[in-house]
Amino acid sequence: MSRGDIPQRFFAARGRGTLGQGGSFIEAWFPQPVEVDAETAQSEGTGTWVTGRLDRLDRPGPSPRRIDDAGRDLRERTGAGLPEGFECSLLCLIDTAAAPASVEDAYLRLHLLSLRLARPHEVCLDGMFTLMPMLCWTSAGPVEPNRLEALRSQVRSRGEWLRVWSVDRFPPMTDYVVPPGVRIADTARVRLGAHLGEGTTVMHEGFINFNAGTLGTAMIEGRISAGVVVGEDSDLGGGASTMGTLSGGNDVVISVGRRCLLGANSGLGIPLGDGCTVEAGLYLTAAAKVEVLDDSGALLRTVKAAELAGADNLLYIRNSLTGAIQARPNRRVIDLNPEIHINE
Amino acid sequence: MSRGDIPQRFFAARGRGTLGQGGSFIEAWFPQPVEVDAETAQSEGTGTWVTGRLDRLDRPGPSPRRIDDAGRDLRERTGAGLPEGFECSLLCLIDTAAAPASVEDAYLRLHLLSLRLARPHEVCLDGMFTLMPMLCWTSAGPVEPNRLEALRSQVRSRGEWLRVWSVDRFPPMTDYVVPPGVRIADTARVRLGAHLGEGTTVMHEGFINFNAGTLGTAMIEGRISAGVVVGEDSDLGGGASTMGTLSGGNDVVISVGRRCLLGANSGLGIPLGDGCTVEAGLYLTAAAKVEVLDDSGALLRTVKAAELAGADNLLYIRNSLTGAIQARPNRRVIDLNPEIHINE
Amino acid sequence: MSRGDIPQRFFAARGRGTLGQGGSFIEAWFPQPVEVDAETAQSEGTGTWVTGRLDRLDRPGPSPRRIDDAGRDLRERTGAGLPEGFECSLLCLIDTAAAPASVEDAYLRLHLLSLRLARPHEVCLDGMFTLMPMLCWTSAGPVEPNRLEALRSQVRSRGEWLRVWSVDRFPPMTDYVVPPGVRIADTARVRLGAHLGEGTTVMHEGFINFNAGTLGTAMIEGRISAGVVVGEDSDLGGGASTMGTLSGGNDVVISVGRRCLLGANSGLGIPLGDGCTVEAGLYLTAAAKVEVLDDSGALLRTVKAAELAGADNLLYIRNSLTGAIQARPNRRVIDLNPEIHINE
Repeated sequence: MSRGDIPQRFFAARGRGTLGQGGSFIEAWFPQPVEVDAETAQSEGTGTWVTGRLDRLDRPGPSPRRIDDAGRDLRERTGAGLPEGFECSLLCLIDTAAAPASVEDAYLRLHLLSLRLARPHEVCLDGMFTLMPMLCWTSAGPVEPNRLEALRSQVRSRGEWLRVWSVDRFPPMTDYVVPPGVRIADTARVRLGAHLGEGTTVMHEGFINFNAGTLGTAMIEGRISAGVVVGEDSDLGGGASTMGTLSGGNDVVISVGRRCLLGANSGLGIPLGDGCTVEAGLYLTAAAKVEVLDDSGALLRTVKAAELAGADNLLYIRNSLTGAIQARPNRRVIDLNPEIHINE
Repeated sequence: MSRGDIPQRFFAARGRGTLGQGGSFIEAWFPQPVEVDAETAQSEGTGTWVTGRLDRLDRPGPSPRRIDDAGRDLRERTGAGLPEGFECSLLCLIDTAAAPASVEDAYLRLHLLSLRLARPHEVCLDGMFTLMPMLCWTSAGPVEPNRLEALRSQVRSRGEWLRVWSVDRFPPMTDYVVPPGVRIADTARVRLGAHLGEGTTVMHEGFINFNAGTLGTAMIEGRISAGVVVGEDSDLGGGASTMGTLSGGNDVVISVGRRCLLGANSGLGIPLGDGCTVEAGLYLTAAAKVEVLDDSGALLRTVKAAELAGADNLLYIRNSLTGAIQARPNRRVIDLNPEIHINE
Repeated sequence: MSRGDIPQRFFAARGRGTLGQGGSFIEAWFPQPVEVDAETAQSEGTGTWVTGRLDRLDRPGPSPRRIDDAGRDLRERTGAGLPEGFECSLLCLIDTAAAPASVEDAYLRLHLLSLRLARPHEVCLDGMFTLMPMLCWTSAGPVEPNRLEALRSQVRSRGEWLRVWSVDRFPPMTDYVVPPGVRIADTARVRLGAHLGEGTTVMHEGFINFNAGTLGTAMIEGRISAGVVVGEDSDLGGGASTMGTLSGGNDVVISVGRRCLLGANSGLGIPLGDGCTVEAGLYLTAAAKVEVLDDSGALLRTVKAAELAGADNLLYIRNSLTGAIQARPNRRVIDLNPEIHINE
């Protein structure tokens, strides 16, 4: 994700955010970001404005207070010393080609991806891991980890129960965004910043990381790692794995073309072109040697899987008698079942 | 699932349902359906009656208002124009051999399966996918997707947090039914319409789709796809996959007999008889060629796995030196650990 | 887990618990257990004291009432006949080398593991499965299964929704404990009694059972079965499986050393030493025959995988042309990405 490849666009969004113990935002929700032209953006400058108290969201005071790009000293700048846990409304203006400058800026970038205002790799996310604070996502709202046990004690004292569904830097997408035309059977498995094309179904075993996802209709019962993009009309079977770049040391960004099928419990370590199938249970790593066969089954050559990166219309199997991984022309490109893919 | 094979039975149930924007039910809960005889059912006719407001559930008004099978125009027929989101009590009478005629009818069918009043494949579910509405399942109850963001804004304005745990046509089973004698470690992975036999444990990696499930004691740490049935005393290891018929183009309904073990990360593309084991990590697709060995390890013949469909007492492995998939007599049929299978 | 190997230590903890229909505790929360010396512990004796009503937690009455080790007849002993569902405060004193004697005792043991006061296998858990009651974990708190439907009806009558996230003997850890310095993307997949070392990240596909876990920094995207321990700086890839001892009949306790990598969708049936890698998609069962190669790729010998138990610095692959499982010196020991492993 080099910045040079990322188009410069500007987005502004009103939102609501929670202030943490340090006096800066620890999370923010932006329901309707809008793109603004470069001239306007550059005259205003990127950054965050605190536009009023939450209960006055529609009547912002006469002089919204600007805070700087770093967003570190909101408490000081807002003068009144907004208390921790206080939720206030804010306005955020960002440059997609620049690195995120504050927590709220980072949250807005993730919203752009999940709201389909940008595709994976079109927003600069440099430094996200250290910027996004660790939070506990609870039935009483997000809370900083060092405050959790006091909150649990309070809640339990009232005879209620505190549920904590995630302890993470990245929240579940549906805590903020549910894009139209998708199904997500178990929302715990889709992070904010995932890009779900219209017509995408994420089944219970599916998973989509941030800055990754689908571009159109898709059946996702496997795992889409950070950075991985899946083309239209493709199907990731249950438990199918795509190698990511965050861990494991792989440098090549994996992608899946259109009308591809990754069989159940299969895995993918190379980018696939269109119309490819990986047999159920086969993990195709980049370093694996693959026998390339013609349509009649005759051996053409043996290559590393990495050399087949991006090739179209191939069927990958492990020969069930010889144990060799083989690639051959794919005779049977999948059709997604239209009945289960209308997500209206 | 051809209708011809489905026995005609009639069930009636009182329940509670939520009305959507279109004025018809978007979901319904039926805690105690009862079977009724054919004569009674046919004199009454199948359909839905709105029996009163929720707060008068036990004192239905003198003239319950009938709505038609299509259930589409509840608002008109109930005269008073029940408001969206209004929850009212209803009575539903259905014929299991006929296709579902309304949302509430479809929900009642799924309840029958999860309450063990019918087994998988014993209730006609034709057209379910288009009938069941997409809903967001939230901490504030089920809501139609186009109303979600307004609800989130409301809830967040009150200083509370809206959790959305599923965006789907099929709800989690435990939002409606928890049958006796089961454990379900992570309820997000069992859909309403799943059939869990008494003594079934679904671990965190287990999954059971609707119209599928177990018939008795079972340890489920793998995935039971739609239509798949698992016999008593069988064990699906962590991440084990069973091929479904909804996607992937497989026509044969997969099933697992009694006392079978699917090893962790294995997969199954053929029906298994009783007493079979599939080695951990082996995906047995129907098209795979399999070496059939005798008890001494001598090769008897080589067949397609599909030809072994339904055979009892076979052990399937991939030979770790030759890479060939092999079937041989299964010497060691599993015993489930009784201590962890008493779900009382 | 033989008692003889478990060091005798004593812990005392104040907590809060819920009383069930039988008049004894069905669950208990202990935020801050403390170790006590043997002399004190033995003069007091192990057991449970009910120290007061919840609303008087900080002002225990003059005569805390002792209950016996079995904890079965709390109702009788507390005299006043505490009502079901009543939450009261308690004090519990246990001996880690003795078998758990009551539900609250069992809960305290699981807290010790998750709070890092004891490591896996350092607390006697004999008889846990039959001791821990089945509960439904709901948005209205834990409830015994036979009370669930009445509760659901009540909640739904109020226009609210009851969420049931687990039906199990063991609760999700984060309902009780969130240790410092960890990330847990989907908390439904970590049981109370899991031991997460500081710097551990459990991704969405990760899972950790009780009496199992990590000892330091680790990336867990696979499944850590009961009893399995993973050393520092190791990485379990997405969907990776470790064989447990509760089911499957395996007698050897699996463990993973330091700086190991289990590739995505791989599996492990033997203990690994330090610096080992199992290739993505390879399930290494104990019975598999493995070709052991030298650094140049020459075959040294063929052995059962079980004979390689505990060996350091090995790379396990399945040869993609011959289908044979092979072990060779591991040239490329992993480094965890430090940016994503700072969980502060």
